[in-house]
Amino acid sequence: MKAIVVKQPGGAEQLHIQDVSIPKVKTGELLIKVEAFAINRTDIVTREGKSGYMTNPILGIEVAGEVVEAAEGTMIEIGTRVMGLVNGGGYAEYVVMPADRAIKVPADLSFEEAAAIPEVFLTAYQTLFWLGELAYDETVLIHAGGSGVGTAAIQIAKQMTDAIIITTAGSQEKLAFCQSLGADIGINYKEQFFDEEILKATNNQGADVILDFIGASYWNNNIKSLKIDGRWILIGILGGAMVENMNIRELMAKRAQLKATLLTPRSDQYKKELTEEFTKKAMPLFTNRKIKPVVDTVFPFEEIQDAHRHMEASKNIGKIVVRV
Amino acid sequence: MKAIVVKQPGGAEQLHIQDVSIPKVKTGELLIKVEAFAINRTDIVTREGKSGYMTNPILGIEVAGEVVEAAEGTMIEIGTRVMGLVNGGGYAEYVVMPADRAIKVPADLSFEEAAAIPEVFLTAYQTLFWLGELAYDETVLIHAGGSGVGTAAIQIAKQMTDAIIITTAGSQEKLAFCQSLGADIGINYKEQFFDEEILKATNNQGADVILDFIGASYWNNNIKSLKIDGRWILIGILGGAMVENMNIRELMAKRAQLKATLLTPRSDQYKKELTEEFTKKAMPLFTNRKIKPVVDTVFPFEEIQDAHRHMEASKNIGKIVVRV
Repeated sequence: MKAIVVKQPGGAEQLHIQDVSIPKVKTGELLIKVEAFAINRTDIVTREGKSGYMTNPILGIEVAGEVVEAAEGTMIEIGTRVMGLVNGGGYAEYVVMPADRAIKVPADLSFEEAAAIPEVFLTAYQTLFWLGELAYDETVLIHAGGSGVGTAAIQIAKQMTDAIIITTAGSQEKLAFCQSLGADIGINYKEQFFDEEILKATNNQGADVILDFIGASYWNNNIKSLKIDGRWILIGILGGAMVENMNIRELMAKRAQLKATLLTPRSDQYKKELTEEFTKKAMPLFTNRKIKPVVDTVFPFEEIQDAHRHMEASKNIGKIVVRV
Repeated sequence: MKAIVVKQPGGAEQLHIQDVSIPKVKTGELLIKVEAFAINRTDIVTREGKSGYMTNPILGIEVAGEVVEAAEGTMIEIGTRVMGLVNGGGYAEYVVMPADRAIKVPADLSFEEAAAIPEVFLTAYQTLFWLGELAYDETVLIHAGGSGVGTAAIQIAKQMTDAIIITTAGSQEKLAFCQSLGADIGINYKEQFFDEEILKATNNQGADVILDFIGASYWNNNIKSLKIDGRWILIGILGGAMVENMNIRELMAKRAQLKATLLTPRSDQYKKELTEEFTKKAMPLFTNRKIKPVVDTVFPFEEIQDAHRHMEASKNIGKIVVRV
């Protein structure tokens, strides 16, 4: 089969198509004929040789496709259209998926749309509810509202809570789109100080939950934006990793709960439980079209280098998908 | 009545005894004739004028004594021996206490012993279980094992879980005492690198929960000592508040949950709920003498300045109590 591998750690030019053997399923696993997969930032980190936890030489952590083989211990019929997280190997014609991560694709969604769901919606669900403990009537600040997780989190928060949703983005176009998804307040971080806007919008209280993909460059503004007893979920470091002069006293005055997380390196058990809860509680909203996957661009398999470059340029609204 | 007030923000020499009126109870409150109170670090911060949240001119957040008046909405009999948290005003002959914070003093405990219980044992319970989510068979690192909260946390963890308890202290005497309370491993931080010892003791896994009273000076060693998915509870900044060059990437690699907390500024409702759960789950262990308050020294009321100086010197093992 054809698969995309990294020649050596480096830029997008290191991605190449190679002929490799079709992987073999073990107990509890499915073999999926991949129809589409999506690009994630973690793939870029792996491509650069910096993740330290991906062992599969083929990139790719989420796919949509058709079940073509089901090992012992699985209950899914051959031919079922599924989507879900895989332990690497997603940039390929075939991939192995633990059966307990397979989510049935709603009938009216294409494979390209389905591939845009697992990673970002599972992450949005996990960070908003499992880590952020977002209560029904709280306020959530979602940075990078136009990103894959951002567009997912806005929709999940809107459809599953009555929370006030504040989002930041770098263009009016992105902000308008975020508002169409359910964001109550949009802040253009290039034109406004987001912490000031959040304090204005919350009667100087701040946000109960912050989803932070940015890290160092937003550090002090995030502390100022956080409500007392707020949960600050660190999911990314697009704005750098090194914080100079962090003042613990400020964290204590806010009784801040700072929770750093990554989904990809977590255990099979964790992913199974998250998938199960998400399938039960959030998937019905996709079937109703109340929540929609957001696809920015679909690239053909041969243009994988361009797909990575498109993500690195941060110009996308929603997911970058590759058709296999 | 006599009460201890701060002349002006500053050192222990600012503490003076003054004649003031006996406070008046409101609905749901008790008037307590104070027999003993204990000193807390938060009192020192308030004395220095740095806390920002104490409004009562009389210091003191925990007392033991006898109920002499009970307002409407309370169910406690006059004459009951109680201990508990108060909203300031504890350094006095009489203090008002919300009735839902009053814990009955077990018959065989003196008032001096009882005064040594509320703040540190409630904090230990809250940080280990509510914030630290310490599971039965995990590993907990308790810094400053000889401190008030340290001696309380060791006992609570020992009697209420099967967790492995690792503690740090600055002298062999303190470590031996911690081990007599139930600590499994004692680390002299003046002679050993605690992170190295913790990794040795945990098969390089680290601790699931860290109770951190130290802050900045232990920052990097605490990150190294934390297990993946570990909870790191920040309760004090005895080692400074400013962390230079904090690397978010390290927090993310550990999926660290950093929870900063203070008990004193929390709401009446929070203190009520914590007191209720603690009374139900932990107080029976005091009645059995499985858990004992640890009193370092009892000072007479007139020697309040010395009592503060004794805490500032960090030479105490357990609580510093003042007899009224």
